[in-house]
Amino acid sequence: MNKAYDELCGIWNQLHHFGHLQSIAGWDQAAMMPPKGNVARANAMAEMDGLMHRMRTEPRLAHLLADAAGEGLDALQRANLNEIRREWRASNALPQALVEASSLAEARCEHAWRAQRPANDWPGFLGNFREVLRLGREAAQRLSDDTGLAPYDALMDQFEPGMTAVEVDRVFGDLQAWLPGLVQQVRERQARDTLLVARGPFPKAAQRALSLDVMALLGFDFEAGRLDESTHPFSGGVPEDTRLTTRYREDDLMPSLLGTIHETGHARYEQNLPREWLGQPVAHARSMGIHESQSLSFEMQLGRSRPFAGLLAPMLAARFGNDPAFDPDALYRSMTRVTPGLIRVDADELTYPAHVILRYRIERALIEGSIEADDIPALWDEAMQSLLGLDTRGNYQDGCLQDVHWPSGMFGYFPCYTLGAMYAAQWFAAIRRQWPDLDARVARGELAPVFDWLRDNIWSQASRWSAAELAQRASGESLNPVHFRRHLEARYLP
Amino acid sequence: MNKAYDELCGIWNQLHHFGHLQSIAGWDQAAMMPPKGNVARANAMAEMDGLMHRMRTEPRLAHLLADAAGEGLDALQRANLNEIRREWRASNALPQALVEASSLAEARCEHAWRAQRPANDWPGFLGNFREVLRLGREAAQRLSDDTGLAPYDALMDQFEPGMTAVEVDRVFGDLQAWLPGLVQQVRERQARDTLLVARGPFPKAAQRALSLDVMALLGFDFEAGRLDESTHPFSGGVPEDTRLTTRYREDDLMPSLLGTIHETGHARYEQNLPREWLGQPVAHARSMGIHESQSLSFEMQLGRSRPFAGLLAPMLAARFGNDPAFDPDALYRSMTRVTPGLIRVDADELTYPAHVILRYRIERALIEGSIEADDIPALWDEAMQSLLGLDTRGNYQDGCLQDVHWPSGMFGYFPCYTLGAMYAAQWFAAIRRQWPDLDARVARGELAPVFDWLRDNIWSQASRWSAAELAQRASGESLNPVHFRRHLEARYLP
Repeated sequence: MNKAYDELCGIWNQLHHFGHLQSIAGWDQAAMMPPKGNVARANAMAEMDGLMHRMRTEPRLAHLLADAAGEGLDALQRANLNEIRREWRASNALPQALVEASSLAEARCEHAWRAQRPANDWPGFLGNFREVLRLGREAAQRLSDDTGLAPYDALMDQFEPGMTAVEVDRVFGDLQAWLPGLVQQVRERQARDTLLVARGPFPKAAQRALSLDVMALLGFDFEAGRLDESTHPFSGGVPEDTRLTTRYREDDLMPSLLGTIHETGHARYEQNLPREWLGQPVAHARSMGIHESQSLSFEMQLGRSRPFAGLLAPMLAARFGNDPAFDPDALYRSMTRVTPGLIRVDADELTYPAHVILRYRIERALIEGSIEADDIPALWDEAMQSLLGLDTRGNYQDGCLQDVHWPSGMFGYFPCYTLGAMYAAQWFAAIRRQWPDLDARVARGELAPVFDWLRDNIWSQASRWSAAELAQRASGESLNPVHFRRHLEARYLP
Repeated sequence: MNKAYDELCGIWNQLHHFGHLQSIAGWDQAAMMPPKGNVARANAMAEMDGLMHRMRTEPRLAHLLADAAGEGLDALQRANLNEIRREWRASNALPQALVEASSLAEARCEHAWRAQRPANDWPGFLGNFREVLRLGREAAQRLSDDTGLAPYDALMDQFEPGMTAVEVDRVFGDLQAWLPGLVQQVRERQARDTLLVARGPFPKAAQRALSLDVMALLGFDFEAGRLDESTHPFSGGVPEDTRLTTRYREDDLMPSLLGTIHETGHARYEQNLPREWLGQPVAHARSMGIHESQSLSFEMQLGRSRPFAGLLAPMLAARFGNDPAFDPDALYRSMTRVTPGLIRVDADELTYPAHVILRYRIERALIEGSIEADDIPALWDEAMQSLLGLDTRGNYQDGCLQDVHWPSGMFGYFPCYTLGAMYAAQWFAAIRRQWPDLDARVARGELAPVFDWLRDNIWSQASRWSAAELAQRASGESLNPVHFRRHLEARYLP
């Protein structure tokens, strides 16, 4: 009998149930809800955020946590207690009024952004965003006061526990030392290649059918999830019912195809979290960096590989008819073509980190207070010019208005994408050590080695270990960017 | 300053927000959720049912209600306080454990029913349904103990406040005195008519497009709602975001067309509830009988009228090509054809009441304990034979398994359909008094008289008055079945 621990588990199980309703309402808001529903939805979700915050900040929890620490818990229970304490601590650092105000301001800003982005309306966006930033800074300061972390680190800690700007700077610094040169070399080499572009239009219904085909190939469980459409693709819902979205362009099938592969990686992580602990925080995905390592294992490591192009080719031809661009080699060339572009989610594997580095620099400065919201466009233009050689002046919709993160108050998330890309390369290095003939297996449609390794080493482990220990157990070392470099050099300079 | 009243309003506003999340989750459960999501969803919604029940049963509410009654409230506030008290009283009659157990048992039974109905699996259904019935009886008894109403009346009171079985017996008794003779006469007369049947198949996408056309004609606000698909059509969501569903049969376009018109009537009531009181119970729809009077005003009074057939005809031709069956007279003959059938929701206007009377008798006996769940099929077969001359033996899926109400524990709802049909006839008698040329107006597409009258007299009044007073104010008298009889005789024996 672990009386205090069991009581905590009961409370967190209630939170799990309420979180279920919030997740479904959040998915609906992005994928289904008509515009006039937004105010009512924002109010309802803010009320629920407030309730969950009150539950996590009840004074007696401090006593329960202290008592539970002295109970005879096994290792798994102890890991769960750590996760409960982490959530409890983060909640107690934030006053109820701030939680509710943030929820409302973010819903307002995000909802207006959906129309402001296509209208290129930066001034309109600023009107809402200043308040989101103000509240984000206040949250960062309060989390910082509580943890002793720097304000930006305290925000990042919510998505990637244990990660700090010092570590991000180290890793991104390493990247910047060799990646621009690599991009340059690859672009020169690729200049000789002939790029075949498939002839559209690609009807939305056929693209959706292709997305479903690819999700099935990737092992998505359609009895426990759905595919829908939204402005900004995401994977949401709950582990028992994982909802992913994509978006369709009739002139280009690649964004929906690669977006679906990416989100299916997130979804399979959620669908395969351990069921026996479900309802407890230890059953959650470890971190957003680890989550992105799943989406990027699917999209980058597997999805853009030459053997996978061989699997995709007949699926494309079946849905859109024969086209020379669907030849496996042509398809592979197209999926590995390096072309600096304005849009992060459409970026190739080599220029993607530049998009992340740019956002990381700006949002860190925003939180630290060294710049204001008004300064974003000028900094964006400058960084896009220096990192990717592109002119974005006046083009807010394809510039600083392109992402959902800032209007949603998600400061500190962006580094997770590139950390995830590095983890993914590290996982595949480990998978290849175990199955040296991986490419041959994938080429014949045998994806089990990838799924089995990820299930055993990542999905089933949930939040049992810290990210560093998870990496150590899975691959024999904590995060090591060398695997990312080796992967890129092997793929792009063979 | 009305301190106690204002505090009650604050609590009910919270309940409104939580109810929003429940409504959307409930809509999703029926229209979107994949099968493996059901257990998690049921648990989450039961948790929320439990929370809302705890909020409505907090001991201090008794004091607040008593104090508020002594405050200087205006008429509207007093009406709201009455509604708050009604909800409070009903909740306090039911223990928390019963509320949560019912929520879970109903979710389990309803979800399994979706597969059991097509499989004609009555024994499988019984396994879950006995528990739903047991809990329904317990709720009825507790509500009865609290109100002094008979157990079945106490359940009906949740859907149609103030309605009793004595009154239902009186009204249905009147109906049974003249309706069977009318059905007989009409069927003899219609035997001479040639019925033209449109040639299908009718692709689902075109039926959906037609549904959207008709919803637009009927004034549905697409910025504040959606049309989706579910096994059992319904209108759900929240007033700010009304979600209606229909179902499509490729061999027959009438079920989706008439179903959509029906649900649009519900939806417009919700979309036009007074916004200034929103969040308070006085802003809710008055009752389910009044709600059905809106769906049936749209489906029966307006939708199946000769002038409306003239509006539908070109819309059908535009979506499915020319067909002699789309001639306005042919369409009208088809929509007013009287043919006893097995399925309630597909029934014509004249035989529909028999379906309701049958269900009312059985569910009342179930709640009163004079029969058991096992007795349903035999009683169903007997009543279908005596009321409609149809043999349903062994055909559970088109018999006692056809409706969602019983698996969902909604005992006491069915009478609302026929009460609604009677109210609808009463509303249209009043509308025709004000606009004697209504048919000519509808024939030229001028539907404003109907919408304006319903908005002024029903929608905008929400729960400000009892159903009886609402009817009195709107039409000069409380429920009077003579209008229903006059309407049917005018339409079917012209």
